[in-house]
Amino acid sequence: MNAMTTVSTIKALVYHGPGKKAWEEHAKPVVINPTDAVVRITKTTICGTDLHILKGDLPSCTPGRILGHEGVGVIDSVGSAVTAFKVGDRVLISCVSACGKCEYCRKGMFSHCTTGGWILGNTIDGCQAEFVRTPHADTSLYPIPEGADEEALVMLSDILPTGFECGVLNGKVQPGATLAIVGAGPVGLAALLTAQFYSPGEIIMIDLDDNRLETSKRFGATQTINSGDGKAVEALMKLTDNRGVDTAIEAVGIPATFELCEQIIAAGGVIANIGVHGVPVALHLERLWDRNISITTRLVDTVSTPMLLNVLKAKRIEPKRLITHRFKLTDILQAYETFGDAAKTKALKVILEA
Amino acid sequence: MNAMTTVSTIKALVYHGPGKKAWEEHAKPVVINPTDAVVRITKTTICGTDLHILKGDLPSCTPGRILGHEGVGVIDSVGSAVTAFKVGDRVLISCVSACGKCEYCRKGMFSHCTTGGWILGNTIDGCQAEFVRTPHADTSLYPIPEGADEEALVMLSDILPTGFECGVLNGKVQPGATLAIVGAGPVGLAALLTAQFYSPGEIIMIDLDDNRLETSKRFGATQTINSGDGKAVEALMKLTDNRGVDTAIEAVGIPATFELCEQIIAAGGVIANIGVHGVPVALHLERLWDRNISITTRLVDTVSTPMLLNVLKAKRIEPKRLITHRFKLTDILQAYETFGDAAKTKALKVILEA
Amino acid sequence: MNAMTTVSTIKALVYHGPGKKAWEEHAKPVVINPTDAVVRITKTTICGTDLHILKGDLPSCTPGRILGHEGVGVIDSVGSAVTAFKVGDRVLISCVSACGKCEYCRKGMFSHCTTGGWILGNTIDGCQAEFVRTPHADTSLYPIPEGADEEALVMLSDILPTGFECGVLNGKVQPGATLAIVGAGPVGLAALLTAQFYSPGEIIMIDLDDNRLETSKRFGATQTINSGDGKAVEALMKLTDNRGVDTAIEAVGIPATFELCEQIIAAGGVIANIGVHGVPVALHLERLWDRNISITTRLVDTVSTPMLLNVLKAKRIEPKRLITHRFKLTDILQAYETFGDAAKTKALKVILEA
Amino acid sequence: MNAMTTVSTIKALVYHGPGKKAWEEHAKPVVINPTDAVVRITKTTICGTDLHILKGDLPSCTPGRILGHEGVGVIDSVGSAVTAFKVGDRVLISCVSACGKCEYCRKGMFSHCTTGGWILGNTIDGCQAEFVRTPHADTSLYPIPEGADEEALVMLSDILPTGFECGVLNGKVQPGATLAIVGAGPVGLAALLTAQFYSPGEIIMIDLDDNRLETSKRFGATQTINSGDGKAVEALMKLTDNRGVDTAIEAVGIPATFELCEQIIAAGGVIANIGVHGVPVALHLERLWDRNISITTRLVDTVSTPMLLNVLKAKRIEPKRLITHRFKLTDILQAYETFGDAAKTKALKVILEA
Repeated sequence: MNAMTTVSTIKALVYHGPGKKAWEEHAKPVVINPTDAVVRITKTTICGTDLHILKGDLPSCTPGRILGHEGVGVIDSVGSAVTAFKVGDRVLISCVSACGKCEYCRKGMFSHCTTGGWILGNTIDGCQAEFVRTPHADTSLYPIPEGADEEALVMLSDILPTGFECGVLNGKVQPGATLAIVGAGPVGLAALLTAQFYSPGEIIMIDLDDNRLETSKRFGATQTINSGDGKAVEALMKLTDNRGVDTAIEAVGIPATFELCEQIIAAGGVIANIGVHGVPVALHLERLWDRNISITTRLVDTVSTPMLLNVLKAKRIEPKRLITHRFKLTDILQAYETFGDAAKTKALKVILEA
Repeated sequence: MNAMTTVSTIKALVYHGPGKKAWEEHAKPVVINPTDAVVRITKTTICGTDLHILKGDLPSCTPGRILGHEGVGVIDSVGSAVTAFKVGDRVLISCVSACGKCEYCRKGMFSHCTTGGWILGNTIDGCQAEFVRTPHADTSLYPIPEGADEEALVMLSDILPTGFECGVLNGKVQPGATLAIVGAGPVGLAALLTAQFYSPGEIIMIDLDDNRLETSKRFGATQTINSGDGKAVEALMKLTDNRGVDTAIEAVGIPATFELCEQIIAAGGVIANIGVHGVPVALHLERLWDRNISITTRLVDTVSTPMLLNVLKAKRIEPKRLITHRFKLTDILQAYETFGDAAKTKALKVILEA
Repeated sequence: MNAMTTVSTIKALVYHGPGKKAWEEHAKPVVINPTDAVVRITKTTICGTDLHILKGDLPSCTPGRILGHEGVGVIDSVGSAVTAFKVGDRVLISCVSACGKCEYCRKGMFSHCTTGGWILGNTIDGCQAEFVRTPHADTSLYPIPEGADEEALVMLSDILPTGFECGVLNGKVQPGATLAIVGAGPVGLAALLTAQFYSPGEIIMIDLDDNRLETSKRFGATQTINSGDGKAVEALMKLTDNRGVDTAIEAVGIPATFELCEQIIAAGGVIANIGVHGVPVALHLERLWDRNISITTRLVDTVSTPMLLNVLKAKRIEPKRLITHRFKLTDILQAYETFGDAAKTKALKVILEA
Repeated sequence: MNAMTTVSTIKALVYHGPGKKAWEEHAKPVVINPTDAVVRITKTTICGTDLHILKGDLPSCTPGRILGHEGVGVIDSVGSAVTAFKVGDRVLISCVSACGKCEYCRKGMFSHCTTGGWILGNTIDGCQAEFVRTPHADTSLYPIPEGADEEALVMLSDILPTGFECGVLNGKVQPGATLAIVGAGPVGLAALLTAQFYSPGEIIMIDLDDNRLETSKRFGATQTINSGDGKAVEALMKLTDNRGVDTAIEAVGIPATFELCEQIIAAGGVIANIGVHGVPVALHLERLWDRNISITTRLVDTVSTPMLLNVLKAKRIEPKRLITHRFKLTDILQAYETFGDAAKTKALKVILEA
């Protein structure tokens, strides 16, 4: 092992149980397994899931954990079995760690890697820190292409592959087809941006927040519906000549929005769930059993990252449109406040720069 | 129009409201649209759906309707636009009528044909009669291959394509993969027979009835579970090293069996629903949102009928194994009794011969 | 049958053997089969295939035939079995006639319809006339959407579905992937326009004509190569870091261009042939047997027409960019001259207005 | 590194240039890279490709090379980065080495792994030896399931995945469909065995050798054609009502057999090439351009090995039927003679036991 830096403590955002977090000193992460790398973070961000953890919703994430699963940085040290990266390389960190060997990785289901999956900032220390240990480095990091915009790349750690894989790919978005996205938060907007790779005919964005609907229009939505009046189904049916939509992407994670998708899906359509759900939903099979529909769920596999890097390189997407605020990494507590109060601050994604 | 027979009345099984049916005289069906054919029934059968209608579960089927949507027969007369069949041709009747022209038919979603779909014995008079009018004849009837066994073919009207399309094709059954079928009634057994086209590694049949499980074994199930003790999930998990199954086919149509499928599906798997559901089920997205699963629903399209005819011709399936009883068509009331009391009579499919 | 017009003769462009054609009087087409419609042409165009016929290359097209297989118009009369259209409807004519019933039509392979396929202006009289008889009208004509631009629609008769189905769909163009199109004539440009539905990363256009390469740039090509110096392979390999392309679309139809595709295809890639070939090509299996490639051929099925209509409606494509010249239908001989001398006139598609 | 044995020399079958080979002493292979394993061979076999090498057909294989790329054995030592295997484990060796990390491995195209692919017994020393070094052990070896028959497993190193992936999967064999396999040698027979996973309707085997055609019948062919009279096309067309076949698998590797496939392929069909070709073939695009066919090539990826292991475990295939002769490993020269004179010895696969 060959390390670039010799510091022994770092600053990091540490979870201390429901409602509690601190920006504090922490031992610097080191290579544990020969396939690990340690990365010096240059840019990271905050995910809606981090707010869930802070509410105490994810028992898998225990007090003492450094949060964060997104970011770019510079390789600081590598284990003896790492062959694709060397100290000094600039890398994109995938939110999902993949061994590349197990039954699931061989199928491209990295999310279920038996020794990986979403572990960063969850069951092992994460990226909201000056340094992070990334397991299975060869298959979980990506070299940053020459001249790439690192802010844009931070969007490729999680939010763009999540919107793309769970929403767009699972939803089988097709040229000319009709798509509704329920939820215009960051991940719904990521689905909106990546859905346009396939030239759908109509993209109808549904949300309660007029500001986010306005943003959706700028991002490519052809129609928007504010569902606050409880009449979203009627409005959508009117827009689609009572056919409903070929694809409905659920990007909220509560029963009301999922059941809305059940009501607006056309015969033969797909409901692609992205939302993180905490309770069961009612599946109206008494109406849907003969409608030839599919429902999909997915934890992002980040298997599309190479494709997204190519699309980004070709300038066919502008991920930076998702970034609304920028902070110094040392101001991360303030960034959390801004991000956590999105209704007021209109925050989508915030960039934290080390 | 050129007709073969000149009778003006026929005998037919007529629905007279919940709990009431009669084998009675009825006007002989005639060609109404130029694309119609009238078929003299030689063999027909009874479907579980017919029992549902008789319970009053399907408001679309109104009193006075001749029941039945399965059968084989001989063309008696054809409309002026019918080009594929002529009087005297022996034909298989598909349970789904397809115009071949509408948006849905062009996608192979015949079940949603805007002027067809499942209408026989539902919204128009059906096949449990001496004669039946079949709309869209060119695209809803199939010529009976030389030397074919007509009893076997009756199984291709509905039950085999239903088990195959809704269960096996939607469930993406693969060589070597693990499959559970919940419900060993006729349609579950049809799924069992057709699943073997794809050489799955394990086929685990789950039911409450030991007789049907025994039949499943003879039909190719590699394992059976009697779910009567409420421990089917544990039993299945033990059989699959706690992985669950790649495909779970729901062939009952009640919440308990659907939720069983939710519990036994492996990460990355497919739940393929065949069951006709009357009430919503609880979809446990709080456990499934990150399991990368799919759930499919489907009313049979009978788009696989040409493939099934080829498989039958090649003797790679023996549909007659589903037939347990045979009656004269005139004894149809007795056939209904036998079929309706399957727990005692062990009936699967009954053949009615004209 | 109910006819709109009562004229008995029309003017039409008639093929009289190699090198000979005339704009002359002809008996007005009438409904022959109950599924026919007669359409009064309002706009038509000339296809490269028409030039092939005039050279005597297509023995299937015999002297006396009215040429043309593209156009839009107004229904003038319909046969008794036509249900989707009535006299006075404005329609798009597909270059492929499809019965919707035969084995091939049921698979979406309309090009091989046993009583249809490409017959218009080939084995039956075609669209370069004041009126045309269209067989299988219900499944071969498309209603013109309200407010649609009819010039744009003429491009949907043949050239756009040909470029899209034979090139883009068969070529499995993917977001971020690398695509080469060999041949920047009208059909290659149609592939270029429709390839962009899938957001490829690089689109490299290869041709001998700098004007057409210039046009390609305006139409969305990211790179162009003039192959006149015999070094197209080297140039392309340089542009792709020696990987070659994921998809190579052959849009010329001669051995040299097909073999160029063999040389530039990446491991795992697809060569999608559109070109009409007159002689065999050398397939270098000694180099390609272990390269995991696919080669596809296809006569357009026009099965994508509904999708293309949706994309057009959503304004995600501008087919009119293919139109370079406009003529009165009565000036069709002049239009042929202009179209036939494309190197000088820079003609792509010409519109003939009745 | 922890080694099981301490010997320093082994016996191996070494290639010494065209026509020359010897069973001789050789330095024992050792772990070079941390991802390597050394395997003590317990069973191996000879492949047709080995004969090609001995003829001098493969310049990539240079004199001094130990031949062989198939076998099972016991882990003798492992590199420091190997996590899936330990000394003493019984393993199946895949003929293709896959790093699991590179662009190609991530797509499942292991054959094109940038540091692997088919290298064993080609560019690095192989399996016809007492010990072999296997690179990328974690992703190129498979644990042998408890109680598995090791002779059967040797067939999973190369021949079964080759027939299955290059022939059956690429050829999209479907239930009820019509399949021809041209060439009834070991790989053609492997395609025949694995094609039956998908229940095709007709399997027509074409070869010059009546003995092999007889074997084909026993292995499941429904029809056989001896092409020695030059009338195979006519014979096949007769068997298929002049339609041709949905899938044609080329398992010979010469122009005559490939062009036979071009003549017998139905519209819409797939020609799946397995044969190793040394010279170009004539692709008759003048007849095929409008036939909607696909042609595929592939070097086996062995990505289907887990599926094949499952099918084997479920006893849905009997790979041992391919084994005709058994020898001691020390008698390998005699085994080569028997295998090389298959026309006389009727050899298919030979097992060499250490």
